[in-house]
Amino acid sequence: MSKTPQPEVIRPSNRQHDEPRDVRLTRNYTRHAEGSVLVEFGDTKVLCNASVEAGVPRWLRGKHQGWVTAEYGMLPRATHTRGGREATRGKQGGRTLEIQRLIGRSLRAAVNLKKLGEFTITVDCDVIQADGGTRTAAITGGCVALVDALRYLQREKKIKSDPLKQLVNSMSVGIYKGVPVVDLDYPEDSSADTDMNVVMTEGGDLIEVQGTAEAGAFNRTELNAMLDLAEQAGSTLTRYQREALEMRD
Amino acid sequence: MSKTPQPEVIRPSNRQHDEPRDVRLTRNYTRHAEGSVLVEFGDTKVLCNASVEAGVPRWLRGKHQGWVTAEYGMLPRATHTRGGREATRGKQGGRTLEIQRLIGRSLRAAVNLKKLGEFTITVDCDVIQADGGTRTAAITGGCVALVDALRYLQREKKIKSDPLKQLVNSMSVGIYKGVPVVDLDYPEDSSADTDMNVVMTEGGDLIEVQGTAEAGAFNRTELNAMLDLAEQAGSTLTRYQREALEMRD
Amino acid sequence: MSKTPQPEVIRPSNRQHDEPRDVRLTRNYTRHAEGSVLVEFGDTKVLCNASVEAGVPRWLRGKHQGWVTAEYGMLPRATHTRGGREATRGKQGGRTLEIQRLIGRSLRAAVNLKKLGEFTITVDCDVIQADGGTRTAAITGGCVALVDALRYLQREKKIKSDPLKQLVNSMSVGIYKGVPVVDLDYPEDSSADTDMNVVMTEGGDLIEVQGTAEAGAFNRTELNAMLDLAEQAGSTLTRYQREALEMRD
Amino acid sequence: MSKTPQPEVIRPSNRQHDEPRDVRLTRNYTRHAEGSVLVEFGDTKVLCNASVEAGVPRWLRGKHQGWVTAEYGMLPRATHTRGGREATRGKQGGRTLEIQRLIGRSLRAAVNLKKLGEFTITVDCDVIQADGGTRTAAITGGCVALVDALRYLQREKKIKSDPLKQLVNSMSVGIYKGVPVVDLDYPEDSSADTDMNVVMTEGGDLIEVQGTAEAGAFNRTELNAMLDLAEQAGSTLTRYQREALEMRD
Amino acid sequence: MSKTPQPEVIRPSNRQHDEPRDVRLTRNYTRHAEGSVLVEFGDTKVLCNASVEAGVPRWLRGKHQGWVTAEYGMLPRATHTRGGREATRGKQGGRTLEIQRLIGRSLRAAVNLKKLGEFTITVDCDVIQADGGTRTAAITGGCVALVDALRYLQREKKIKSDPLKQLVNSMSVGIYKGVPVVDLDYPEDSSADTDMNVVMTEGGDLIEVQGTAEAGAFNRTELNAMLDLAEQAGSTLTRYQREALEMRD
Amino acid sequence: MSKTPQPEVIRPSNRQHDEPRDVRLTRNYTRHAEGSVLVEFGDTKVLCNASVEAGVPRWLRGKHQGWVTAEYGMLPRATHTRGGREATRGKQGGRTLEIQRLIGRSLRAAVNLKKLGEFTITVDCDVIQADGGTRTAAITGGCVALVDALRYLQREKKIKSDPLKQLVNSMSVGIYKGVPVVDLDYPEDSSADTDMNVVMTEGGDLIEVQGTAEAGAFNRTELNAMLDLAEQAGSTLTRYQREALEMRD
Repeated sequence: MSKTPQPEVIRPSNRQHDEPRDVRLTRNYTRHAEGSVLVEFGDTKVLCNASVEAGVPRWLRGKHQGWVTAEYGMLPRATHTRGGREATRGKQGGRTLEIQRLIGRSLRAAVNLKKLGEFTITVDCDVIQADGGTRTAAITGGCVALVDALRYLQREKKIKSDPLKQLVNSMSVGIYKGVPVVDLDYPEDSSADTDMNVVMTEGGDLIEVQGTAEAGAFNRTELNAMLDLAEQAGSTLTRYQREALEMRD
Repeated sequence: MSKTPQPEVIRPSNRQHDEPRDVRLTRNYTRHAEGSVLVEFGDTKVLCNASVEAGVPRWLRGKHQGWVTAEYGMLPRATHTRGGREATRGKQGGRTLEIQRLIGRSLRAAVNLKKLGEFTITVDCDVIQADGGTRTAAITGGCVALVDALRYLQREKKIKSDPLKQLVNSMSVGIYKGVPVVDLDYPEDSSADTDMNVVMTEGGDLIEVQGTAEAGAFNRTELNAMLDLAEQAGSTLTRYQREALEMRD
Repeated sequence: MSKTPQPEVIRPSNRQHDEPRDVRLTRNYTRHAEGSVLVEFGDTKVLCNASVEAGVPRWLRGKHQGWVTAEYGMLPRATHTRGGREATRGKQGGRTLEIQRLIGRSLRAAVNLKKLGEFTITVDCDVIQADGGTRTAAITGGCVALVDALRYLQREKKIKSDPLKQLVNSMSVGIYKGVPVVDLDYPEDSSADTDMNVVMTEGGDLIEVQGTAEAGAFNRTELNAMLDLAEQAGSTLTRYQREALEMRD
Repeated sequence: MSKTPQPEVIRPSNRQHDEPRDVRLTRNYTRHAEGSVLVEFGDTKVLCNASVEAGVPRWLRGKHQGWVTAEYGMLPRATHTRGGREATRGKQGGRTLEIQRLIGRSLRAAVNLKKLGEFTITVDCDVIQADGGTRTAAITGGCVALVDALRYLQREKKIKSDPLKQLVNSMSVGIYKGVPVVDLDYPEDSSADTDMNVVMTEGGDLIEVQGTAEAGAFNRTELNAMLDLAEQAGSTLTRYQREALEMRD
Repeated sequence: MSKTPQPEVIRPSNRQHDEPRDVRLTRNYTRHAEGSVLVEFGDTKVLCNASVEAGVPRWLRGKHQGWVTAEYGMLPRATHTRGGREATRGKQGGRTLEIQRLIGRSLRAAVNLKKLGEFTITVDCDVIQADGGTRTAAITGGCVALVDALRYLQREKKIKSDPLKQLVNSMSVGIYKGVPVVDLDYPEDSSADTDMNVVMTEGGDLIEVQGTAEAGAFNRTELNAMLDLAEQAGSTLTRYQREALEMRD
Repeated sequence: MSKTPQPEVIRPSNRQHDEPRDVRLTRNYTRHAEGSVLVEFGDTKVLCNASVEAGVPRWLRGKHQGWVTAEYGMLPRATHTRGGREATRGKQGGRTLEIQRLIGRSLRAAVNLKKLGEFTITVDCDVIQADGGTRTAAITGGCVALVDALRYLQREKKIKSDPLKQLVNSMSVGIYKGVPVVDLDYPEDSSADTDMNVVMTEGGDLIEVQGTAEAGAFNRTELNAMLDLAEQAGSTLTRYQREALEMRD
């Protein structure tokens, strides 16, 4: 689907410009959570645990709807050098808050909150090992954990109908050494000219587009090339999600 | 430049779909800051003060470059109902951190940090009155304050060459009742289907694109229509900035 | 009214020893707050927004009375050099807390809390530009914003009778180079021997007297000379407040 | 020295209107601090420990002077009902900060900071039992602890000359049921019309005057009556301090 | 009861290896708390105030039982060098939290929480002067204050039966220069090989054993020798507690 | 080695009273840390990452030694019900601090800090899934990660000799329904009469003993029975550690 030949860039991983990393989705990774998924995008590993709790936040009480939210964290040594533990520093950093707000918004797009009833589902996304793309992996795996939590609510007869509207997935794309590439790993991410995270529905529509020029700026042509790559990878992610969840086509 | 007729939507402000609010940029609004600009996008009023300080953050020391950063705040009663004061609650919220990170990244795109030398410029963007679009106003006005701070450094002979690479501006666009519109005010913003903030260079290239589907999702056609509107408004903002700064064409 | 000739001091502003700065009170400065006043004492500019909220703090519930409180903040670059943002540092400093407690106590002296009913009025005093005397300006302007909030409650038929007991105002006085002076600006304030803030009723009685010897000590004669100056200036402030509020004599 | 007869008020303690409570100053109350004084104003008991540390705060480095500061705390059950522990709540309250700033300013008036050299003396004032007037007791007892710390520095040959300029003391006065009274205990303090804390030098000059109308307002005549009482009590406090310190007359 | 001769160690205090310091328990030390005990283990002095409040923490509501908890603090200059005030640093340190959790658990072992009814007793243990063993003194003195609070509840007819199950006490033991010793003071504590805190019932059973090898490790024989010393001292502490409380044998 | 027959208790897991759970130690679990071990005690899973950093804490500078410390955390849904994220609440709880202090002390007993040189090793112990005994698993697994970090330092020639003094391990024991048992899982832990954590050297000596009576009290006979069980299990843990580390006997 990429419109132009991109022959010459050598990615650090030797992947093709439109070739995502291996994706693995392991359900029931831990045993307590209503949904527990280890998602791996290559060496990036994120544990996504969906927890169901009765009740909703104060500002939603009496509105006959549920809530879906997310929290994000990184184990201190998920990265090359040890990062301070946010619990020790006494607050979550701006990057953390920004990412968990993005994950929460994205996952809410998957759910009919009215049908969810007065339950809150919190999806904890904790990075065990980081190699770029932790937020996109978290959304993709978090959605699978979320579906398991919704199934739990139905199996336990706590809700009557399925609140799932659509699966959502997320993929990073960027301009690396002038060439649009998909699923940036850490070496690419840290030297890319432009970095964009795209959240998509299983139908290929857009939920969120966040593109940032790290060096210089980017034009509409480059934006479109990146979106093409994201769309193509998104359909692959949807297939993995459906397979993991044993959904009928 | 909008490709399709958009005749029928009635915006709460009665503006045309591609008509931004009145923009005012008042330089030297307060007297202590090296750059001080009150920016108004209609009823949204943001005071942008650029402060120059010698030295750079610890992690940049010895790298022979400067730094540009931003902080964002909202006066408690800038909004319809009073919001808690962040200083009282003891931390900045996630929305605040997300916005000030965006402003900082955007303004850094305007500056050659090597030429800036070991100075830090902090642009404080404080919202006096909010009516939607505070972050886009802050970037647009903050850039003017930043230029004044750069001029101060040159006038005072603290640096030798002009670190300004290009002006940057920002505009919000969205899908309101199915129609792409530009420069959403609060009534539109709170009920829009999709909301997108675009940061552009004076040359029309993209620095940052952040689009979020608040309800449903959006497709590539809608994305392109929104970007067209942003581009068109961006060139207007550039003109206002240059006029305010008395820059030669 | 000053008892002794004070001929010889040269104030940095060239004002007479008993000459306050120009005072301006601009009502309806922003549009959301029930009372919104920009108060200027020369180059000191404070935005005072009075917000009405139904209900009272927990410890007043069921006591059939209202509450008036204040919060104070300074924009980071209101001063000559940039001060850290309190929201970023994670707490309000001792000076801030001390000032907002003073403003709150002073404004409560203006109101019959029983007549206010179970409403809370919060007066946010945010310093846009500082040149000495921000707390006295805040009390003087905050009282006007408070009256507007009380009028709002009456106009909206939320309360039956006027809770206003009396206007309150505040003025700084001090001993500068051995001479009692009124309304110290920043250059005077930072080198004064003694600094005193006086809060008065419109009838000339005292609500609060806070005098501090910054160098050496002061005696009863000096105290009385300062209080004479404050009384004289207070009656001027009352006149400005009444004019701004269009009160009948 | 009180100008008018005040025959009729019955104070809860049966004290005369101009009669302070019994004052006790116990030096060397604990054994580690360079100065350690338990001060008692009746049932109000405050432990004042003066600690000497080499060095000064960052903003005083290289200025060839010392620093005197104070911290104030109240044991949770110093009062009638248990107050939350500030260490547990994670911050010092506004009242605490206001009081410790007052104590610090007052004690600095006792010391020639140049002669102190680059030492910091921190006077910790911890309220063991509260019955009104904790801040005045803290200043009065803290000054004695401070002198012991200055003597320690001289005895240990760490400084050459005595930095003590003058003793300082503090007394509360107020208007209770219409009558000026001295040294308010808790029952008086909580129902007084006006409450004033006065800090004085041993020579009778004023360091700090903080008067607050808790109900209504007060006039210049009442202010003067209160100051007369404070002056009279201050000279008694000076005598107690000198006796405790075994100072020659 | 010590099994082996321990002739040769010279303790800094010249005490015998099985000789605790002088213990004093002063009831009614302050006047507001329902139980107020100053406990002294030699130069270690801890003020233990027990406060009764109606109600229980949220997680115990409706369970028809009471709660006993403790808080621990150290005055900044209780020690040889001044420690930072935890209220100023904004949080209680790990050591503080660990100690107050230990005190709370230990004191709960003294009380039948069902019989206590829906009251919370908070025992504040504030160290006035430290010389080793502050936590053991706090438990021993805190238990006496707790009993006074239980007696208050009975005297005031707020509860019907006595919730006291048994007195608890605590003693430190250790290996100092190879010899088991009891009641370590600061010089011993800071150079002991092993340090153990033992909490016991008045019947001699164990509530808590916390032994730590500071250097090397310890074996079962040493553990038993230390426990023998603790048992022996514990029976002495019980006697002091019963005497202070005027309990019948 | 247990001295008396314990025939009758039925443990929830059907284990014998002296039968620990299956233990697994997986080295190189993640790829960035210098030592990375997943330790499993049955369903309890803790990821222990040892990070090497040059330098030591401020208070150790210039002392020619290294430092070993630990941090402990629990993923929010490691437990049956979701616990709040400590980073969100803004501080580590008392239990967390207590555990991480224990882990740090225990691991320091394994290392000759002089031989370590001026390096700091931080062992992060993050609980992926909890079923009782997380702290004992963390110490046991953390020691293996620590050895890998020490080997890294030697392999990289950053230090000359092996700082390892001895392996340390930890096991929980308790009294469950009156019977001493080893390695309590969550169902046992939450209803045990007494709970004790023992840290031992590979030679069988004691590093730390922490026993708590959760209900009633325990006597010396029970203490000894528990210690017998811990010793027996400790020698098993040592064998697993040595096998995992491929150490010669």
